[in-house]
Amino acid sequence: MAKTLLDLSKARRSIRKYTDENVSLDDIQYALKVASLAPSGANEQPWRFIIVDDDDVKKRIREACEKGERHLYDNVNGEFKKWLLSQGLSHEKPFLEEAPYLVVILMNRSAKYARESVWVAIGHMLLAFEEKGLSTLVYTPSNTDYPLHELDVPTGYNLEAILPVGHSDDENPRTSRRELSETIYMNKWGNRARQKNAPTHKREEQRKT
Amino acid sequence: MAKTLLDLSKARRSIRKYTDENVSLDDIQYALKVASLAPSGANEQPWRFIIVDDDDVKKRIREACEKGERHLYDNVNGEFKKWLLSQGLSHEKPFLEEAPYLVVILMNRSAKYARESVWVAIGHMLLAFEEKGLSTLVYTPSNTDYPLHELDVPTGYNLEAILPVGHSDDENPRTSRRELSETIYMNKWGNRARQKNAPTHKREEQRKT
Repeated sequence: MAKTLLDLSKARRSIRKYTDENVSLDDIQYALKVASLAPSGANEQPWRFIIVDDDDVKKRIREACEKGERHLYDNVNGEFKKWLLSQGLSHEKPFLEEAPYLVVILMNRSAKYARESVWVAIGHMLLAFEEKGLSTLVYTPSNTDYPLHELDVPTGYNLEAILPVGHSDDENPRTSRRELSETIYMNKWGNRARQKNAPTHKREEQRKT
Repeated sequence: MAKTLLDLSKARRSIRKYTDENVSLDDIQYALKVASLAPSGANEQPWRFIIVDDDDVKKRIREACEKGERHLYDNVNGEFKKWLLSQGLSHEKPFLEEAPYLVVILMNRSAKYARESVWVAIGHMLLAFEEKGLSTLVYTPSNTDYPLHELDVPTGYNLEAILPVGHSDDENPRTSRRELSETIYMNKWGNRARQKNAPTHKREEQRKT
């Protein structure tokens, strides 16, 4: 039986280590097709995708990205530094060479709601990869000038993310999530959403200020 | 049989007119749960959701949004104005009162990659509504100060979008999409992705500059 979106979104994890098992280009194109059907501001479809499977190009993208990361890791401080270290992250991004495919996501920055639209498409794409049994990671390079240059991307386009795609070789558990009671309110900020099967709330309760 | 993500993304349309047919709150919460499982920068989960089913609150949100829209429509020009008119859009947003539910999407703007993360979650949510047979629209108010005030949202949170949710009463056809050959490249900008079943491209072809 096909999986529900809740199954897919529960199963999805961010993966930083990939096996060398083959991936079908059809599956990559399937996910990009799903992404391309996302809505966008004034239907401008500001996304462009570069699929990378050439080892030489991957190597150059990795080097370009690590150049930017080295600068970040040398300069980052405080809570973010602690978080990075707690995650075992460093300036090294081997997944950019190890994953069978990279999907580079570009954005036409003159489009209306360009960033919002591109990230809705990424939200579609992540679930489509999961549906095809593929793992990925939303990697946002610290400096995008270097990889943009490597890929001959014209002026006017931002590099929003690079998604390595492949089969997981990563044993990390899924990250936790807040309780929904912390993030979902009813009718105004701070009002707890009523629980499943609870009686319908009274109107008066919502009018309190 | 359950639908694939391609089925769902093909079937989804932006809907501006809703019937008064009942919608289950469980289905709304299902979609928000799917959205909440999206990845986010440093797992900060910067999204907050307000579900609105109170008619009085909906009315006040509509008025707050239309106040901002009136200003936009009085001042917009050029291509965007043409596009708005071609879509039959105006400053009036009756769907904010007519839809059985509104989902107001807020963003903790101090989080890392806050906007990107929230819109990935919206990308998940749109497909989850479609899976439940519900229609929606990503409405981005021109001025968000008025509705933020109506909902008692504290400083530090942006209003990113309001999604009316219900059953479609809208006969508009789906908007078209660019050919994938216009938006997907292979190994560098401008290289056409090879087609399904086409022979594997040669490495040399990608090394041309």
